[in-house]
This record gives sequence, structure tokens and C-alpha cells, in this order.
Amino acid sequence: MLAGNSIGKEFVVTSFGESHGKLVGVIVDGCPSGLPFSESDVQAELDQRIPLQRPDIVSARLEKDIVEISAGLFNGFTTGAPICMTVKNKETKSSDYDAIKDSPRPAHADYTARIKYGGFNDYRGGGRFSGRVTVALVMAGALAKKLLRTCGVDVLAYTTAIGKVKMGDNNLSFTEIQKRKFESAVRCPDLSCGERMIDAIVEAKKEGESLGGIIECVALNVPAGVGEPLFDALDADLAKALFSVPAVKAVEFGAGFASAELKGSENNDAFCIKEGKVVLSTNLAGGILGGISSGMPILVRVAVKPTPSISKEQKTVNLAKIEETTLRVSGRHDPCVVPKAVPVVEAAVAVTLADHMLRSGLVPRILKEQK
Amino acid sequence: MLAGNSIGKEFVVTSFGESHGKLVGVIVDGCPSGLPFSESDVQAELDQRIPLQRPDIVSARLEKDIVEISAGLFNGFTTGAPICMTVKNKETKSSDYDAIKDSPRPAHADYTARIKYGGFNDYRGGGRFSGRVTVALVMAGALAKKLLRTCGVDVLAYTTAIGKVKMGDNNLSFTEIQKRKFESAVRCPDLSCGERMIDAIVEAKKEGESLGGIIECVALNVPAGVGEPLFDALDADLAKALFSVPAVKAVEFGAGFASAELKGSENNDAFCIKEGKVVLSTNLAGGILGGISSGMPILVRVAVKPTPSISKEQKTVNLAKIEETTLRVSGRHDPCVVPKAVPVVEAAVAVTLADHMLRSGLVPRILKEQK
Amino acid sequence: MLAGNSIGKEFVVTSFGESHGKLVGVIVDGCPSGLPFSESDVQAELDQRIPLQRPDIVSARLEKDIVEISAGLFNGFTTGAPICMTVKNKETKSSDYDAIKDSPRPAHADYTARIKYGGFNDYRGGGRFSGRVTVALVMAGALAKKLLRTCGVDVLAYTTAIGKVKMGDNNLSFTEIQKRKFESAVRCPDLSCGERMIDAIVEAKKEGESLGGIIECVALNVPAGVGEPLFDALDADLAKALFSVPAVKAVEFGAGFASAELKGSENNDAFCIKEGKVVLSTNLAGGILGGISSGMPILVRVAVKPTPSISKEQKTVNLAKIEETTLRVSGRHDPCVVPKAVPVVEAAVAVTLADHMLRSGLVPRILKEQK
Amino acid sequence: MLAGNSIGKEFVVTSFGESHGKLVGVIVDGCPSGLPFSESDVQAELDQRIPLQRPDIVSARLEKDIVEISAGLFNGFTTGAPICMTVKNKETKSSDYDAIKDSPRPAHADYTARIKYGGFNDYRGGGRFSGRVTVALVMAGALAKKLLRTCGVDVLAYTTAIGKVKMGDNNLSFTEIQKRKFESAVRCPDLSCGERMIDAIVEAKKEGESLGGIIECVALNVPAGVGEPLFDALDADLAKALFSVPAVKAVEFGAGFASAELKGSENNDAFCIKEGKVVLSTNLAGGILGGISSGMPILVRVAVKPTPSISKEQKTVNLAKIEETTLRVSGRHDPCVVPKAVPVVEAAVAVTLADHMLRSGLVPRILKEQK
Repeated sequence: MLAGNSIGKEFVVTSFGESHGKLVGVIVDGCPSGLPFSESDVQAELDQRIPLQRPDIVSARLEKDIVEISAGLFNGFTTGAPICMTVKNKETKSSDYDAIKDSPRPAHADYTARIKYGGFNDYRGGGRFSGRVTVALVMAGALAKKLLRTCGVDVLAYTTAIGKVKMGDNNLSFTEIQKRKFESAVRCPDLSCGERMIDAIVEAKKEGESLGGIIECVALNVPAGVGEPLFDALDADLAKALFSVPAVKAVEFGAGFASAELKGSENNDAFCIKEGKVVLSTNLAGGILGGISSGMPILVRVAVKPTPSISKEQKTVNLAKIEETTLRVSGRHDPCVVPKAVPVVEAAVAVTLADHMLRSGLVPRILKEQK
Repeated sequence: MLAGNSIGKEFVVTSFGESHGKLVGVIVDGCPSGLPFSESDVQAELDQRIPLQRPDIVSARLEKDIVEISAGLFNGFTTGAPICMTVKNKETKSSDYDAIKDSPRPAHADYTARIKYGGFNDYRGGGRFSGRVTVALVMAGALAKKLLRTCGVDVLAYTTAIGKVKMGDNNLSFTEIQKRKFESAVRCPDLSCGERMIDAIVEAKKEGESLGGIIECVALNVPAGVGEPLFDALDADLAKALFSVPAVKAVEFGAGFASAELKGSENNDAFCIKEGKVVLSTNLAGGILGGISSGMPILVRVAVKPTPSISKEQKTVNLAKIEETTLRVSGRHDPCVVPKAVPVVEAAVAVTLADHMLRSGLVPRILKEQK
Repeated sequence: MLAGNSIGKEFVVTSFGESHGKLVGVIVDGCPSGLPFSESDVQAELDQRIPLQRPDIVSARLEKDIVEISAGLFNGFTTGAPICMTVKNKETKSSDYDAIKDSPRPAHADYTARIKYGGFNDYRGGGRFSGRVTVALVMAGALAKKLLRTCGVDVLAYTTAIGKVKMGDNNLSFTEIQKRKFESAVRCPDLSCGERMIDAIVEAKKEGESLGGIIECVALNVPAGVGEPLFDALDADLAKALFSVPAVKAVEFGAGFASAELKGSENNDAFCIKEGKVVLSTNLAGGILGGISSGMPILVRVAVKPTPSISKEQKTVNLAKIEETTLRVSGRHDPCVVPKAVPVVEAAVAVTLADHMLRSGLVPRILKEQK
Repeated sequence: MLAGNSIGKEFVVTSFGESHGKLVGVIVDGCPSGLPFSESDVQAELDQRIPLQRPDIVSARLEKDIVEISAGLFNGFTTGAPICMTVKNKETKSSDYDAIKDSPRPAHADYTARIKYGGFNDYRGGGRFSGRVTVALVMAGALAKKLLRTCGVDVLAYTTAIGKVKMGDNNLSFTEIQKRKFESAVRCPDLSCGERMIDAIVEAKKEGESLGGIIECVALNVPAGVGEPLFDALDADLAKALFSVPAVKAVEFGAGFASAELKGSENNDAFCIKEGKVVLSTNLAGGILGGISSGMPILVRVAVKPTPSISKEQKTVNLAKIEETTLRVSGRHDPCVVPKAVPVVEAAVAVTLADHMLRSGLVPRILKEQK
């Protein structure tokens, strides 16, 4: 079964389109009717993808993506029918990619895609495997976030590390992070740390190198009881969505890998009563127990590998001749995809939460009876 | 949609049963016909769950699980029909769990399950959320491993850390790991390190504490081309399966979190030619590029949190009275679930690989024409 | 993808077991928690399968099936976990079936199953393809019916034709049909017509022949708005469930095939107001418009083919020798499966409606908060 | 779960778009790579939808639909990525539909959709429920048919009845039907019968009436062994696809309803040997036994109800005022949708067969290794 371009069981997101094809698009099926929604909701998210403060730290492909919604809306509301959102590809210099047809770029999907599809895959710019395709997830995420907001749920991702530059502990509130995040070209709410991250990227770029980093994502106000064990556990489905974001190599919830070193008494979040309600006094579990949300903030962290495309010469092979060769990746590429990946991580979390809120029966199928 | 007890799209595993109910079981639908399979294949896996060398480091619930296969086999072969495997629960002291009915154990699913199911969930021993239920996955894993072996694929999990005791780098081959693993009660192939892990567990137990750890899993001989991007990427589906294993809080592939600190040239695995074949000179990607296997070993690592059940007194709340209280978990519990989780991780990887090998068309639907 | 033994998206029914294996069973995943349910609810349905009045018109295999529920219940309520129900096979004379190993019985699945599974299928008594396996659907149907009743929905199937004997138009109410149905060994609410049907079956049996018939099923009180177009239309999913019942060769809703001969003005059900509510003055649509329930009774009719097993000599082939031969089906078989198929049709409709009522958000995920 | 706009498990078809929105489209995920395919393959199918010989017997909406494929093709071949095909809506007179906003047209989905989506549905021209949306299925069908042809499978639908005019038995071969079908404006291969059908439609139109009919579909060369019992039986999935075609009210295979009146010996197709191969001497089963193809032609028949839209005055209600009223459907509508439904039935059968051929492992995932 080759079909793997849909995710979600109630809020079903289907991605389509290629980096250097006509467009990138997404269908969302299962969104309740009666949600006020328009292209401007999506455009706002798309516009935030590119850090306008420092265009030098991202790819030169600075196309302004304009969303078109061609199905599923009527009179400014969702109708209950599938919603189709697309963005046209404009700046596509396909000639840049002739070189990679037979010589796969290390750490890209060029080789594995060629094997899988027998060489029929659209290899230009990575085709379906390009970071470009994450635009589809961002568009679906815009819808998911609007839907979640009707339930009071907010999702927020931000950068906590670029290469070896790491944001230390801070006491920033959700609102402060939300406010400061976009002041930073790398989406790091600790602005001075963000400056050091930018310096590191600029340095790497000069060297013909690239950097990775860590993105953290918080979801506030997810009620207790969301998630469907055993296999459709909330963390399991969040991880699935996050690992489908290109370049993500690790996912952890709450204390994550650190919890492996703790003792039970250190790792167990105690229950207590606060203002008459059951809460947890700490949140090392990251808001999920037994695959079900606990009512505490959902906290997830992902590792993003350094951009595979670097200007330095790399060893590879010529697949047509079955011989070793070298390659220097030309074309436009980001020295660090972390800033652009921040909204994608946010979108992956949002669509998964929207799916699970619907699955838990916490979102009505008709959002508001129309007069 | 409450239904979440199945995983896989072609090799579909459905788990059922509770810790203190009549049985724990699994249905596997989609297994090709013609695979020689019997209860003894499963029994061998079940028998390895308990480290007989050191029963003191695991729960006192030392029941010998006897598998029964009640559907899907005929004349010693799979028939193409769903396969049903069950294990009866014998040693169930339900009275141990009266205390937790209203007072959720910290870091367990007691609270979240109660909210989700309105108090109707079988809370005895954690019910569906008990580690006991992983027996279902181990049984399905036995079938998956037998199926994978017809394609030459081998899956092997082992412990690399318990609490703060970590196995260092070693040059053990797959075969050596395979051989030594069961010599160690904690399933650590570095036997002297394994002894220190055991000491740490014994120490923790004395203190009324518990420990977590790290489990690594390797899959050998997975051909290039397995995995279905975008969303059914091989790493995405492996992560989903692994996060559905209780106590897993983090999953990483290859260099994982460490890759976030590397530069592109350090993290990119170069392609080269070896014996006329395209291979990668290193494997920091963990055998997966763009969600598709590269032909290199699949390498995944999970963090297991310390057992939530500890003898120490803990703060919790009484949900009936909405007041704070304390709790001391009685009943039988493992001071460290890592050794028992090793075969479960292996099974989670195996069922996912079996599913994806089938999806990739690499396993025939009839394994052998019967005479 | 061989996996095809599950149906439903929210109320997910997985069938397993073979005619001459150890058992026949079913897992239902997705049932809300808090539904009072026990083995006696299922047993009542199982007991009605066999027309005790006239055991001579059914197969000699008069085993009393005793249900066992081994997972998913606690303290008399559903828990939200998967529910496992099984029935043991007792009277299995496998030797009866040696003859069919290589000589497929006409109109049975012997040949197609052999091709599909490469000869590994359990052919005894038809294995997975036996009418025996419908017990699984009846058990799941018992649960579905109990769930539907919490919403006031009632499902009722009955026989309207056996061979050429057809029940004429009648003005029987739902309640009258319900009452009379079981007075008739063939489940025909027109009792005198039922007697003629019995005579026809007895006659056919004498001749070494078999008969088919028509079963009608009505679902009352399904609210308007149930069904998910485009492809998961209510009629589409009902038809899928019904065609998966062995021997069903045709399905129609409302006027069905007859509507093809009507003019628009004859076939269109007019809307009108009755007691302040919108209703339809007629119900030629069978309660479904555009794949969505209209609030009128759901009305579906299926054709059941004559039992393939007949005592008369039939032409077939020897698959081992690839030569023509003849066969006389020995063993126990029903001269007419219609009476036994009535509860199966009812179950197929009930599980589909339960699934769609859940999908439409009309059944809460927790049926009642437990004290 | 509102999401119901996808069908298929391996060849997954997702429909989107509305009658009076911007476009109607379809995504097909799971198509193997390496299939030569282009817009002209689809255009040929779209062009056949409208019987150019007699435009007077169809709706005045004679828009020429031009397909655009915007994803999933590269260098003239499928790539293995999702394929997106769309057709723009041009002739949309939305004003025609103001009247139906509150007054549902009898036998249309206006009322049920309004209830289901709380009035947010795009009611113009029936929105998602319009016959217009079947263009999506026809486009997916064009791809499915091209894929099936690589396996030698041919699918052919044609009209056998319009109202009371029925095509009698004939000995037309598949090739003759194929050739003559398009000579008839109503797609009836018996051309003189087709003329009488046209007369009946013209007559009905004059009266302000509409007619329904019967469409038969044959699939040739489907190998034995296709179909996945229990629930994903080939007939079950074909029926599901066919009932999701608007206006279909009945589906039968082979002898269908007539088989209910036959005796076993009459209905059982005997096996015999022909040219060294096992075949069936008759085909009353319609090519499917136990949900699996037998190697004989698949034969399915559907009843299409008369077009709900008629010019005659009809009784309905005003849903805003909850009072009875009358309505005369203005706007463009077909006096008989049967001719236009013929390619839709063909497409529904083709996509289901493509899905099941893939599921059975009978189509390789890469169709041809590219040089």
C-alpha cells in the first residue's frame, strides 16, 4: 500500500504537490461545519514562515505564497465538506537539479525515493520530499488552530537550540513567548540567545555548512481525557505527525530522555487540588499519562537535523554508472531550517490535537446553528 | 472515535484484554498465508520476558504465560485468516487495587483513564494501561518476526542504560549482542555494565524507589525502499508504535537529539560503493532518509521512565472527596520495567516493519504454494 | 493488503475464527463506556438463531452456542476498552469435508479461497467462509442493538420471500412484526404465508434441493442527519455490511429496483408537516436521501441465494488432477439459510447504524457518569 | 467522524469540490509509479459524459469540462505521489437556487444536508450532493482504467433500461457492446431499444417528468482471487462504491434478486475444464464467490431512480417557517440522469477493482523500471 499522504482519523489531512510542480496543496476532510474561516486565516500563517528580519539566514527562494481555498467554504464558514487549500509554486529553477538526477545528495531522500519509485519520482528540488511541501501542513494547521481556539486550546512552538547555542531555563509565560517569538528571526523567545543563534547560522553559512536545532511546542488548555489508547495514544499520534516533518530525528515529551535517569519519586508528578480542581504539581510527563491528556500543558520537543544541503563538497555516488563521485549542492538552500520548521511543528501538533479533540467528542459536529 | 486498539495498515494488530480480567489477547489480520507458525514460536518469546537469572529485580507476579492460538492456523501454517492469540491471567490479586479506585497513583493512567471513561474503566492493576497488556504486542511481534525472517530481516532490542548507569560505546556485532543479551538479566549486551545496572536496581528497590532507562533497537537487512511518505513514513510509524508502549517518553533515530548539535558535513552520511553496491559510509540517519529505509540498519532508541509504582509515600488526591491525600503503592511492581520492556520494543519495531514490508510489496501474499 | 476482517470506523467490528476451528469470535472496539451489557444480552440473540419450532428445516448442526465475554466489561458495564466475545465450536465433523479439499463445491467459496490463499485456507466446512462465522456478527449486533436502544433506535429484520413464496403487502405495524416474527420458524410475520414457506423448504429438502429468499430490514427512530457522504453514505455502508453476509446477492433501499420504472413525480417523497415536525408523506427512498437519513424508517431488502450445498449430484472439477468430476455434498446443511440469515441481516444493519450514530456525534462517549 | 470523502484502501480516491463552487476535484493516493498518464487520458472520459447526439435529453448545462492535473505526474508518468485532478466550474447560475434555500426539493439531499450540517452546507445546485460532483469519480476512474488495462482488465457499463423500456436478452459480445454503446445517446448497446428509450425520455420531459433506469457493468479478465473477505469482500466494496453514486437505489450481482427464486441446482454455477483451465459453465454468481473473484466476468447491475428535479409542481415545506408549501424546480436539470451515470458506474467499478487488484498484490508498485 503506497498510499501514505493522509493523517488523522476524524480531522483528515491529505497532502499533495511537489516542490517544483505546479502547486502544493492540502485537503482537510472532517472539519465541523460552521467554523468562520477564510483565506486570510491561512495567509497569516504562511506569512510568518519567513523571518523577514533576517532573510539572509534562509533560502534565497523568497516567494510570497498566496493561498487559494477552492472547496469547502460557503458564506465565510466551513460547510462540513472537504476543504481544499493550495499555493502555487512560482520560483522554480528546475535546471538547478539536473545534477542530482543520478547523484543523490547525502542525507536527502534522493536515493531512497529513487529506489522506492523506480526512478519515476519528481526529483527536482526533492519533489515530494522537499521542505516546500510542509506548506501543506501549515495550511491545514491554520484551520486546526482556528478550530482548537473555539475550545480555548492554543498551540505554540519556538526554537530552544540552534547547533550548540541553547536557550537556558527561563520563566517566560506562554503569552510572553507568544509575543517575543516573532521578534526573533529564529523564533527564539529569549531574544539575546536568539541573536547568538543567528550569529551561529551566519557563521555556518560562511563555512558552507548548515546547522540543526531543537524546537519545543506547548499546547495550553487541552482538557484531560484526550487521546485513545492503546495505539492511538495522544503522544503516539503526536510523534507520528512530528516525525513526518522532514529533518525531525527525535521526539520527546515532558522530561523525555532525561526521565530515564530520574528515580520514580523524582519523575512522578504528584496530584494536588488547586482552586477546587485536580491538577499536577509538576509536569515532567508533558501533559500526557497513559496516552491521555492530563489537563496540564502538552509539552513536546523535537530535534531537527542540520540541513542536508551544504555548499561543501561531499562524497556521493553516480547511480547510473555505479561509481563514486563528489557533489557540491548548488541551488538555493537554508543554512538552517529550524526557523521555518517552527510553524510546521506547530501545525503538526495542531492537526493532531484537532483530530483527537474531535475523536474525544469535545468538538461539536456543527459549531453554531446558522440563523 | 474511541477505537484506538489497532495498529498497522496491512499487518493489522488489535490488542484486547485487561491486567486483571480473564485474559490478554491479540488479533493479527493481514498476515500472508503459508507461514509455518505455531504456539511454540510465541511461547519462546513469552518465556524470554522474565529474567529468570534475577527474579528479584522484577515484579513478584511471576506467572508463566501460556499462549493459546485459537484462530488463523491450519495444519501448521497461517491461512490468511485473522490469527487470535491469547494468554490467560492467573495471578490476579484484585484486592490490592481497591485503594487506587479513588486515589490515582502518580504517573500512572489511573486519573486520565477515569476522566476519559467516566469511571467505568477497569482500574484493577491499571486495566488496559497495565504493562501486562504488552504481552499482546509481544505475541504479535513473534508472528511479525517469523514473517520478517522469511525476508532475512532481524530485529534486536537491548538495554543501553538503567538510571544513570550507561553502556559505553562498544564494537559488539549484531550476533554478539544477540548472543549475550539474554545472559544479562537486564538485557544489556555489555555484561559487566549489566551487573552495575542490576546493582542500581537492587539499590533503588531497597529505597522504595524505581529506575528507568534506555533501550536501543536495531533491525538488520531491511532493504532500501521501505516506508510510505509523507505521513506513513517509516520513522513516523515506528515512533507511533513505540510511544504506544507504556512508559516510553522519547524516541530518536540514529544520532537523534545529538544531530541537532552537528554541522551538516558531520551529520550527512556519505554514499559510497562497497562490493558493487550503493551503501552509506556512516549511519547517523539510523537507516531512514525521507521516511524511507536506506538499506542500512534501522537504529532507534527509546527512553523508558522510572516505574511509576514506588513504595515511598506519594502525594495524590481523593477524587471522590476532591481532597489531597497520600498513597503508598502496595501490590507487586517492578523496580525497573526496562528488562521487560526490551521484548516489547522489539515487538513494536517488528510489527511496524512487517506492516511496511507488506505495504512495500516486499512480502508475497502467499508465502509458498502448498503441494 | 489482505486485512479485511474489520468493519466500521467508530464502532469497529473485527471477526475471527473458522467453522471447524476452536471458536468463532468478535472484537468490538470503540463502544462507549457505561453501557450495561452482559453475556445474557448476547445469549438471547444467539438463541434466536435457530427456529426451534421446526428444526427439520435447518441444518442438523444444532449446537447450542454459549457466548463468553473475556474483555471489555467491568462491573456489568462496558469500559470503553475492546470487547471480546467468543463462542466455542463443538459439533465439528471435519471428516465430512475431506472430499471437498480438491473438489470445490459449486457456488461455495472453496475454489476462490483456494486460489486466493494458495491452498493454505482451512477448507473444513468452508472455514472462514462458512455461515457459521456469521455468529460473530450476531454477537456484535447484540451489542450494537443495546447501544442503539439508548437512542431509541430499533432494528428489525424478517423474511418476505422463500423461493417463489412471497409475502404480499400487509399493514403490519413494527410492533406486530416484532411480536409475530418468532412465532414463525422462517421468521415471516405473515404467519400463514410463513407456513407455505416452510412447506416449500420441506419440499425442496426432499428433492435434494435448496431455496433462497428475501429478507427485509427496518430501522425505526433513526434521527435525520446520520450518514457521511460522499463515500461513507449511510446506504453505501449498509450495503457493504450486507454484502459481506454470505449468500447475499442483491441489496435495495426503499422502492429499490422498482424506482427505476417510476416517474419522478411517483418516486419523489413529498415533505409535509405532521405534529409540527417535518416528515415525508411517503418513504419510497427507504429513509435515506443523499446518503443521509431523513428521519423516516430505514428500509432495506436483500436477496439471499439458495444454499449452495445440495444433495443432488453436481458437476465440478478435481483441482489436483485438473479434470472434471461430480460431487454430492454430504455433511449437514440447511435446505434454506434464510431463517438463520434474518438475525445476521439485523446485526449487519445494527452495527452499521451504531457506527454511523457514533460518527454523527449522536451517542455520547460516556453513556452515564458512574457514582 | 464527519470525514467520508475518501474511498479505497490502496488506491485511495478523495473527492472534493461543489456544484457551484470554484471546481470539482479528486486526489488519488496509492497509484503505482511508472504508469504513463496524462490529461488526455482523463479528457477522453470526460468528453464521453455528454451524449452529443441528443443534447436535448440532458441538462442544458453543457459545459465542456477541461481537466487539469496539478500533482503526481512527471515526464508523462505517475510518480507514486498523490495525483490531483480538477475541473473548473464555469456555467454556474447560482441565483437559480435561492428558492431552495429554505424549501427542500423532494428526493434531493437538500433537507438531510441542512440537518446534518446545520444549514452551513453549500446548497447551490445541491453543492456536494450534486451529480456534478461525480466528475471527480470519472477522473479517478480514468486513472483506474488505465491502471487496470496494464493487467488486461476492462470495465464496461451500459444502459439496459430507461423507465419501462428494457433491453431484452441479446448475444452481444463485450467488444460489440463497447463499439455500439456510444452510438446510442442513452448508452444502450441495443440501438433500436436505445431509440425507444430516447423517445421515452423526450416524452417524460414534455410532461415535466423524469425517468430512471438500469445500468449494467461488466469487468472482463479480472483474475480469480481478488477480494478480501470477510468485510472487504469484492462485492461488498463494489456495492459501497456504487451506492455512493447519487440516485443509485439498488445493486445486484449476477442473477441478483432473481437468484432468490431459484433452486440450488439452478443457481449453482458448475465448475468445468476449458482449454486446460478451470472455469464456470455459467455465471449466475456474477463472477464473485465468497467475496472473491472467480475468474469469470464481474457482472453488476444498479437501479437509478428518476431525477428528483422535475418541472411539475411538488409539495414541500418551508423549513424557516415550518409550513407546507409547493415548489416547481426551475434551473437546468436532466429528465433522465442514466446516460450521464453510465461512466460514473464504470468509474466506481474501476476504482474499486484497481484498489482490490492492488490489495491482492496483482499490480506491482513500480510499473516499469525507467531507463
